[in-house]
Amino acid sequence: MMRTVFAALLVAAAAPALGQTSITTLPPPAVADPKVAALRDFVLDNDHYAWDIVEGLTTEVGQRLAATDAEARARDWAVRRLTAMGFRNVHVEPFTMTAWIRGPESSEIVSPFPQKLVVTALGNSASTGPAGVTGQIVYFDSVDALRVAPDSAVRGKIVFIDHQMTPTQDGSGYGQFGAPRRQGPTFASLKGALAVVVRSIGTDHHRNPHAGVQYFTDGAKPIPAGALTVPDSEQLVRILKRGRPVTMHLTLVSHTLDNAQSGNVVAEVPGRDPNAPILLVGGHLDSWDLATGAIDDGAGIAITTAAAKHIMDAGQPERTVRVVWFGAEEPGGFGGAAYAKAHAADRYAIAGESDFGADRVWRFSTKLKDTDPATYRELAASLAPLSILQNDSGTADGTDIEATIAAGAPWISLNQDGIRYFDVHHTPDDTLDKIDPVQLRQNVAAWTTMLAVLSGGIEPGAKQQSRR
Amino acid sequence: MMRTVFAALLVAAAAPALGQTSITTLPPPAVADPKVAALRDFVLDNDHYAWDIVEGLTTEVGQRLAATDAEARARDWAVRRLTAMGFRNVHVEPFTMTAWIRGPESSEIVSPFPQKLVVTALGNSASTGPAGVTGQIVYFDSVDALRVAPDSAVRGKIVFIDHQMTPTQDGSGYGQFGAPRRQGPTFASLKGALAVVVRSIGTDHHRNPHAGVQYFTDGAKPIPAGALTVPDSEQLVRILKRGRPVTMHLTLVSHTLDNAQSGNVVAEVPGRDPNAPILLVGGHLDSWDLATGAIDDGAGIAITTAAAKHIMDAGQPERTVRVVWFGAEEPGGFGGAAYAKAHAADRYAIAGESDFGADRVWRFSTKLKDTDPATYRELAASLAPLSILQNDSGTADGTDIEATIAAGAPWISLNQDGIRYFDVHHTPDDTLDKIDPVQLRQNVAAWTTMLAVLSGGIEPGAKQQSRR
Repeated sequence: MMRTVFAALLVAAAAPALGQTSITTLPPPAVADPKVAALRDFVLDNDHYAWDIVEGLTTEVGQRLAATDAEARARDWAVRRLTAMGFRNVHVEPFTMTAWIRGPESSEIVSPFPQKLVVTALGNSASTGPAGVTGQIVYFDSVDALRVAPDSAVRGKIVFIDHQMTPTQDGSGYGQFGAPRRQGPTFASLKGALAVVVRSIGTDHHRNPHAGVQYFTDGAKPIPAGALTVPDSEQLVRILKRGRPVTMHLTLVSHTLDNAQSGNVVAEVPGRDPNAPILLVGGHLDSWDLATGAIDDGAGIAITTAAAKHIMDAGQPERTVRVVWFGAEEPGGFGGAAYAKAHAADRYAIAGESDFGADRVWRFSTKLKDTDPATYRELAASLAPLSILQNDSGTADGTDIEATIAAGAPWISLNQDGIRYFDVHHTPDDTLDKIDPVQLRQNVAAWTTMLAVLSGGIEPGAKQQSRR
Repeated sequence: MMRTVFAALLVAAAAPALGQTSITTLPPPAVADPKVAALRDFVLDNDHYAWDIVEGLTTEVGQRLAATDAEARARDWAVRRLTAMGFRNVHVEPFTMTAWIRGPESSEIVSPFPQKLVVTALGNSASTGPAGVTGQIVYFDSVDALRVAPDSAVRGKIVFIDHQMTPTQDGSGYGQFGAPRRQGPTFASLKGALAVVVRSIGTDHHRNPHAGVQYFTDGAKPIPAGALTVPDSEQLVRILKRGRPVTMHLTLVSHTLDNAQSGNVVAEVPGRDPNAPILLVGGHLDSWDLATGAIDDGAGIAITTAAAKHIMDAGQPERTVRVVWFGAEEPGGFGGAAYAKAHAADRYAIAGESDFGADRVWRFSTKLKDTDPATYRELAASLAPLSILQNDSGTADGTDIEATIAAGAPWISLNQDGIRYFDVHHTPDDTLDKIDPVQLRQNVAAWTTMLAVLSGGIEPGAKQQSRR
């Protein structure tokens, strides 16, 4: 375990030589509760709840764009499924918001080499209208290059922002390489651009664009903003390198709907002590509209719900386990904000979200390391057999629980392997076949283990009746 | 080398034990000509012609659908490039045909679970018109299952044909698993189907459909015929397994143009003996319209042209090397048929086509094995250092040279590794990034070696002047 090794190394630095450290200087031992270990191992081999949920939701509902009829059908599906699984207090907590709805979209190079390029609009893009717009491409290799460009280089043109995102296991490239999508449209607009297209924030080489949200800030007027696929962006770079003026025709039709309805779906495994701080887990129910949202975030709600169901199957925990399928995460965390506001009086023992695909959990970190070291060591010992490392420098993670954590809830992050994540993220390719059932089960085992350790104890006598 | 091993084993069967065979029973030795070996090794390390061609064609022309303006631009590009490279007798041999042109297309499940599926029309599909058609899906797991179904099960419905194509190194799955695309629409039409969709003939899991040609035969009336992507086909299967009637709305708009112009582009490295049988190599210039046709078949024309250029750079061969960039292969080998008809009087020393991607050549076979065993052994010895095996059971390969071979030309097949080929074949993903430059150079080295061995000798003194 990483923390133990670090501790040993610190001691070793003061000792004559590595290997001669006294084992009596190591921290107190931690071992997993045998009942927790047995539950973990059972789930690792046998879970089917998670697959059933993500298979069912993606097949029977499909895409679930925030604040649309599709997301409403998903909430209905969620209530039926969670009720059938035996959860209690299953209900929807509605809220309203402005929905952004995609229409027809296309792009083509008009000259010098006429050809179509595959594009998708970014969230909150202005609409070009069905006739589209035509303009000369101006190239920038980063947002910063655009930022320092004179307005005269940009005005009336279609800005293209390139970059070279690389896969990382911890997903750390999303901050830096996501900047073209998040900040590019605003900078382009403030400099008078006609429109903006960015290279998709993705690590694949398929003709599937990566959607995603952006906001026009700092008084920037909305302009049409889209993402080209990675192969199309590389094609555009090759065309630009010929040195001739490049003209693009861009059509990105969209509209907005005010006072559209979204909502969070809440379900619980009631604890023996209704006054004990609760365990909050979940993911987001909405998806982008280009695919069925299997890894983003069908998998996350499936994993956390399956884990809660395994606690239910084992008996009754001391603490209530609350599962939330948050609405409208993709356009900006509307569900998480609405939840935190509605539940400002609730007290939490932990808050955790699964929203980084369906590949294996490879490390974890939690606030409890500082506030409850004994429980932290027990968690670490219980998770280690799933090949899960301790991450001493980890931070809270998850748009949906951000507001709840900001209000004081202790957090836990079970970090998934993100090497493949941005191959598929927000593309038409986010479909069920991208989920590896074996890795999905490892996730469920990890979350079940975490809930069991923090449950305050599960009493078999009070086992819930499962209807599914 | 495979053939030698086989011969040894045959002898071994009559000998007391393996390992005691006399080495005096092996066939006569063959060694590569040192000049050919040096050329081969130079090309393997240094070729850039092939990359330059496929990069240029895919960037500056893009998709090249048969008998369209795009294919005409590609012919213009070809004449300019081949002339600039120093080829002689560069010209276009035009022919006319009926072009099939894709329009807007989409599909969606209307009930029980409304959602869009990604589809593309197959070649020669009837048009649904912009309003589309709506019908109930009837499922078949193979063409044969459709073939034996009663008309009453199919009439007025949208036929869906499933299958499970598997990747193979030699591409042998394309025959069996291609049947749903090639024969399915005709069977569906003859039984009175409203329309037909097939699972894409592909081995990937991306939301990119695989286009491809089919013909309505046996008096079948054209009906709308499309291919769903592999993930969408699997989604449709999951939806059907719920056991409720499934209704699809299908829009496949297309039109045809009679007397549309296509053409073959011909270029030569003139031989010292104009009367000697010539070496014919090439690939096809047209592509499907969904992508830039990098592996199908930009790579093939790039590889064979680069090889001919290396012969030109080395001097003047005894035999003329003729390179043909065939037109309109995808809709059914129109260019190859036109070429064979126009050149019925020509005599060939060999005919070979590259049209199976850009991955490495792993084996070869040729008619010369029977007609000229000494040259065959020299070829085998010269290609073996490129890790190319002898394939004793190989056959002639290539739509474009089929008619020429049928008329008597000796053939050679340099088989490319096809494990990845049907991941990308005929999809929007057939773009330049799918080509591995190292494997591309191995292809050029193999074709250059073949041409050098069969050239009748290259005289350095008569070296052509290269302008590029």
